[in-house]
Amino acid sequence: MPLDPIERLIAELTRLPGIGARSGARLAYYIIRASQKHSGQYLARDLARALDAVVDTVGFCQKCQNFCATQMCSICTNPRRDQQTVCVVEGVADLQAIEQTGSYQGCYHVLHGALAPLDGIGPSELKCHELMLRLQTDAVRELILATNTNVEGDATALYIASLVAPLNLNTTRLASGIPQGGELEYLDHATLGRALEERRKF
Amino acid sequence: MPLDPIERLIAELTRLPGIGARSGARLAYYIIRASQKHSGQYLARDLARALDAVVDTVGFCQKCQNFCATQMCSICTNPRRDQQTVCVVEGVADLQAIEQTGSYQGCYHVLHGALAPLDGIGPSELKCHELMLRLQTDAVRELILATNTNVEGDATALYIASLVAPLNLNTTRLASGIPQGGELEYLDHATLGRALEERRKF
Repeated sequence: MPLDPIERLIAELTRLPGIGARSGARLAYYIIRASQKHSGQYLARDLARALDAVVDTVGFCQKCQNFCATQMCSICTNPRRDQQTVCVVEGVADLQAIEQTGSYQGCYHVLHGALAPLDGIGPSELKCHELMLRLQTDAVRELILATNTNVEGDATALYIASLVAPLNLNTTRLASGIPQGGELEYLDHATLGRALEERRKF
Repeated sequence: MPLDPIERLIAELTRLPGIGARSGARLAYYIIRASQKHSGQYLARDLARALDAVVDTVGFCQKCQNFCATQMCSICTNPRRDQQTVCVVEGVADLQAIEQTGSYQGCYHVLHGALAPLDGIGPSELKCHELMLRLQTDAVRELILATNTNVEGDATALYIASLVAPLNLNTTRLASGIPQGGELEYLDHATLGRALEERRKF
């Protein structure tokens, strides 16, 4: 027997990260309700068309592997961006977070993940090969390793650093330490220990 | 210029309740990523088809106004359910919550909202007319008003009670009081006051 369409929608919604059975059902009922009101708001159709559109048009930027609907993303094609500085991030959300600081003028390389051998994610699951190809053809001076500061992110940074070592690039890592507005009393030991180790001249 | 497909997907996702700009972007990137892996998981397509399916097939149960893909829902057509007891709820999620208790054998009537004059939601926006029609044709003995115990829910229960007053039904309201596992010390004044007022013989 085919799944009831309402249960099917709930099942599809619960495949999304952070959406469990209860919130999936809540979203599904909201979507069905919004699409049945005679208010001209066809939420379900609009969302379905937006989903189809990303499948049909969105791919990877051939240079930095950012998501984009063209061959190259708007950052790689922007002549005002410094093409010689490349910031390596785990995901597009990280790229967006750095963009929102407004203080970075270089380009990016999106790995689309981090090394996690236990989950079966090795270098070939990441966009490492694309990074190496790019570094061999483009004139890159600085490579900023901006992966997360957890076990996977640190391992990924180490791995990439070892990969690019023969290229003699200026390889850097984002600073680690006390977050702005942070209170020492409430900081975890690891962060405080790292901040102490990497203290700088005042 | 038409909206970029990624931005369009984020915009559609943020129309959902509880999804803001940041979680909308996170979901969108997850969906795009999951649909580009060569893993046979075509999340975006599956979700789009599920959305289309609910628009194409899901309507209201002609009896209780529950969402269903047929003329009458599985509760209204179940001969083991007591058709003479009708539980009035605000939404389908409330119906599901009551079903999950496993202790209700009657039927439902879904209002699809609660009275909220300030938001422009009056009786004609709710399925009140359908309830009255049903009560005039079906033999209903008890009407359980199971709207929420907030201002809108209480007002809706009062309104329906006044509508059905001439029909001489047994109209009841869900018990209000201390939740199971609740500690008096941490209860809000309104709940504790209500529990005191409605105390029962031990």
